[in-house]
Amino acid sequence: MADLSRRLAAEALGTAMLVATVVGSGIMADRLSDDVAVSLLGNTIPTGAILFVLITILGPISGAHFNPVVTMVFALRKELETSAILPYVLAQILGGIVGTLIAHAMFDLSMLQISETVRTGSAQWSAEAVATFGLLLTILGGLRFKTEAIPMLVGLYITAAYWFTASTSFANPAVAIARSLTNTFAGIRPIDLTGFILAQMAGALIAAAFAAWLFAESRNEIPPIIPEGTERP
Amino acid sequence: MADLSRRLAAEALGTAMLVATVVGSGIMADRLSDDVAVSLLGNTIPTGAILFVLITILGPISGAHFNPVVTMVFALRKELETSAILPYVLAQILGGIVGTLIAHAMFDLSMLQISETVRTGSAQWSAEAVATFGLLLTILGGLRFKTEAIPMLVGLYITAAYWFTASTSFANPAVAIARSLTNTFAGIRPIDLTGFILAQMAGALIAAAFAAWLFAESRNEIPPIIPEGTERP
Amino acid sequence: MADLSRRLAAEALGTAMLVATVVGSGIMADRLSDDVAVSLLGNTIPTGAILFVLITILGPISGAHFNPVVTMVFALRKELETSAILPYVLAQILGGIVGTLIAHAMFDLSMLQISETVRTGSAQWSAEAVATFGLLLTILGGLRFKTEAIPMLVGLYITAAYWFTASTSFANPAVAIARSLTNTFAGIRPIDLTGFILAQMAGALIAAAFAAWLFAESRNEIPPIIPEGTERP
Amino acid sequence: MADLSRRLAAEALGTAMLVATVVGSGIMADRLSDDVAVSLLGNTIPTGAILFVLITILGPISGAHFNPVVTMVFALRKELETSAILPYVLAQILGGIVGTLIAHAMFDLSMLQISETVRTGSAQWSAEAVATFGLLLTILGGLRFKTEAIPMLVGLYITAAYWFTASTSFANPAVAIARSLTNTFAGIRPIDLTGFILAQMAGALIAAAFAAWLFAESRNEIPPIIPEGTERP
Repeated sequence: MADLSRRLAAEALGTAMLVATVVGSGIMADRLSDDVAVSLLGNTIPTGAILFVLITILGPISGAHFNPVVTMVFALRKELETSAILPYVLAQILGGIVGTLIAHAMFDLSMLQISETVRTGSAQWSAEAVATFGLLLTILGGLRFKTEAIPMLVGLYITAAYWFTASTSFANPAVAIARSLTNTFAGIRPIDLTGFILAQMAGALIAAAFAAWLFAESRNEIPPIIPEGTERP
Repeated sequence: MADLSRRLAAEALGTAMLVATVVGSGIMADRLSDDVAVSLLGNTIPTGAILFVLITILGPISGAHFNPVVTMVFALRKELETSAILPYVLAQILGGIVGTLIAHAMFDLSMLQISETVRTGSAQWSAEAVATFGLLLTILGGLRFKTEAIPMLVGLYITAAYWFTASTSFANPAVAIARSLTNTFAGIRPIDLTGFILAQMAGALIAAAFAAWLFAESRNEIPPIIPEGTERP
Repeated sequence: MADLSRRLAAEALGTAMLVATVVGSGIMADRLSDDVAVSLLGNTIPTGAILFVLITILGPISGAHFNPVVTMVFALRKELETSAILPYVLAQILGGIVGTLIAHAMFDLSMLQISETVRTGSAQWSAEAVATFGLLLTILGGLRFKTEAIPMLVGLYITAAYWFTASTSFANPAVAIARSLTNTFAGIRPIDLTGFILAQMAGALIAAAFAAWLFAESRNEIPPIIPEGTERP
Repeated sequence: MADLSRRLAAEALGTAMLVATVVGSGIMADRLSDDVAVSLLGNTIPTGAILFVLITILGPISGAHFNPVVTMVFALRKELETSAILPYVLAQILGGIVGTLIAHAMFDLSMLQISETVRTGSAQWSAEAVATFGLLLTILGGLRFKTEAIPMLVGLYITAAYWFTASTSFANPAVAIARSLTNTFAGIRPIDLTGFILAQMAGALIAAAFAAWLFAESRNEIPPIIPEGTERP
C-alpha cells in the first residue's frame, strides 16, 4: 500500500510536470514571438526534454505512464494489476489539472480558465489516432528491444509528433483534459475533448493489436543491421 | 515466411512513418512561418527525431533500411539475401506512398497530388550524391564500430544533411518517390526523380567501395583518441 | 588538501563556464534577433549543451554542483563533508562572477555592470521555487536510479525549465549573483536577488524532503515499464 | 603504412565533411532567413550533429582530431607519434579546403573565393582562446573519465560555443583556413587568420597544462555526485 501510494504520487507528479511544461512553455513561446512556428519550437523542445527527465526518474517507481491510454494498454497486456487502473488514471487526471494551475500561477494568469481553441473534425481526429498509434508503438517497441532507451524514444517521438500531426499530438486523455482548462497556446475546447479521447483510444488499441504481432518473440530471426546486444534475452 | 512478412511490414511501416513525418512536418512548418529557415528547422528536428525512434524499434526486425539504396548496398555486401531485395524495395516504395497519403489526410488536403517543385541541375545532383555518400558511410561506420549508436548516428546525420546539402538531402529513392506525390513544402517534380535517384545510387556505391577499404578489419591499429570499448570484437 | 583544491577548482571552473555560456549566448542571441523567442532558443540550447559537458567532465572530480542549493542539499543528506560546504559555495560564487567577466571580455563590453532587469513578484518567485524543486528532484532521481544519465538529465531539465517557468529558471544562487553583474539579456537587478535566492532555497528543501520519501529504497516493488537494469543494486 | 594511409584518409575526410557542413549550412541558413540568430541556429545544429557522427565513425581509425591544435596537444602528451604530426596536419588542412569546394559545388557557387568577413581584435582573439581552451578541456576530460561520451561531448561543446563566444568558436586552424576560402556566412578574411590561429594555440596549450593538473589520476578521491562507473580503471 505504501508502494501504491508512491506509484500514484509518481504518476500525479509526472503528469503535473509534463502539463506544466506543455502549458507553460506554450505561454512563454506565444508571448515572445509573432512567428507561430518559432512558438511551436519553443513548445516542442521543452516537452521532449522534460519527457526524457520524467520517464528516467519516475519510470522505476510507477512505470511513468502519465497517460490513461498507456495505462489501458498495459492493463490489457496484463502488465498492470487491475486494481491499479482506476487509481492510476485518477492520479494522472488530477496531476494534469494541477500542472495547468501551476503554469497559470507561474505566469501570473487567472487560475481557472476554459479554453476556446477549436480542435475538431475528422482530420484532427485522424491526426490524434495516428499520433497515439505511434506513441504506443514506440513504447511497446522500446519495451521489446531496448528498455533503457525508452525515455529518449518517447521524448524524441513526441518531438516529431508535435510537427507531423496536424493536431500537434496530444495523444493523452489526461493531458487533453488539463489543456481544456487553459485558454492559452496549448488549449483545447472542453467540447472537443470527446473526439480527441476517442481517437486516442482507437489509435492506442490498434497499436496494441499490431504490436502483439509485429513485436512477438521470434525464434530464429537474424536482423540484418542491428544484430546483437539490442534484443532482450 | 512469417518472419519475412514481419520484416516487410517493418520496412513499409517505417518508411510510411518517416515520409509522414517529412511531409507532415513540412506542411505544418510551412503553414506556421514566413521564415523559410524556421520552417526548415521545423522540418529537420522532427525528421532526425523520428529516425532515432524508427531505427531503434524496427531495426531488430528488418534492419530498418527504409531506403532502396541501403538495401542495395547490404545486398552487395552479402548481408541481405538476394530473394529479399525486391520485396524490401517494394515495401519501402509502397510504405512511402502511404506515408504521403497519411500526411494529406491529417492535414485535410486532397489525397492525390503531383509536386510542381523544381529540383534539378548538376548542383542538386552533386548534393544528392554527397548526401547519400555520407549516409551510407555513417551506416557502415556505425556497423563497424558502434552498432548500438546507429539510430542516433542516422538521426543526427540527416539533421546535418538537411542543411549542408543544397538539396536538403533526400538521399532515399523511396522517400523521393513518395515526395513527388505531394505539392507541399517537401515535394519534388516527378520528372526530377530520375536525376535524384541516379545521384543517390552513385553516392551509395562510392560510399560502399570507399568503406570497404576505410572500415576494413585491422590487426594492430592503436587508435589515439577512442582506444577501447568501441570496436566490435 | 590537494584533492580539495582540485574539487574547488572544478566547482569554480564549471560555474564560470556555465555563467559564461548563459550570459554570452544571451548577448549573442539578443544582438542577432528581434524575435525574443528566437533569442531564448539561442540562450537555451547552448546552456543545456554545456551542462552536459561540464557535468560529464567535472562531475567525477567535485560532484559538479556549480550551485549552492545543490551543495546545501548534499550536505543535508550527509553526502558532502561539513567542512567543504563554505569553500564549495565560495568557489561557485567566485567562479560565476568570473564567468560574467569572461563573457563581457569576449563581447567587448565594459567589464563591470549592474543589471537593471526587473525580476520580482510572487509569480516569479513561485516560478523559481518550482524550477529549483524540479532541478533537485531531477538530480536526486538520477542519483537514485541512473547516475550515468545525470549529465543528460540536468541538461535537458534546464532546457525545459528555461521555457516552462516564467523566470526562465535561474534555479541557482551563484548563477543569479553572477547574472546581477551584467546589464544584458540574462541579467537580474541586484535588489531582486533576495527573493530569487529564498525561493530557490525553498524549492530545493521541499524537493529534498519529498525525494527522501519518493526515492526511498524499496524492497519488493515491481515497476511496470522499466523493469530491469535501471535500479541501483 | 597502410594503417597510416587510412588514418590520414580519415582525418582528411572528417575535416572535409566538417567544413562542408559548417560552410554549407551557413550558406543554406543565410539564404533562407533574414534573422541572423535563426541562421546561426541553422548553422549550429548541423555542426554539432555532424561532429557526433564523424567522431563516432572515424575516431576508432585516426582519433578523429580534424584539428591541428588537437593533434599538437596529443603530440605533446606523447599520445601521437612524432612522425605522424605533419601528415595529420596536412591532411586536415587539405581536407578542410576540399570541404569548402564541395560546399561551393553543391550550392552552385564559384569554386574559388576569398572571404571579406572581418574577424579581428582582442575581443575576438580572447573568444577564440576561450573557445579552444574549452574544446581541449572537453576532449581531455572525456578521455579521462568517459571516452565513449566524447562524440557527444564535442558535438554539444561546439553547439554551446557557437553562441557563448563572440567569434562563434572556430577553435580549429584547419577549419579557419578552409573558411577563409569562402565569401559566405562562415567566412573569415585570410589576413585575420594569424590572430585566430595564435589565439587557438594559446587556448589549447593553457588547457593542456591545466588539464594535466586537474585530470591527474587520483588515489583516494570520493566524488560526491557521480561515484561509480565513470572513471577509467
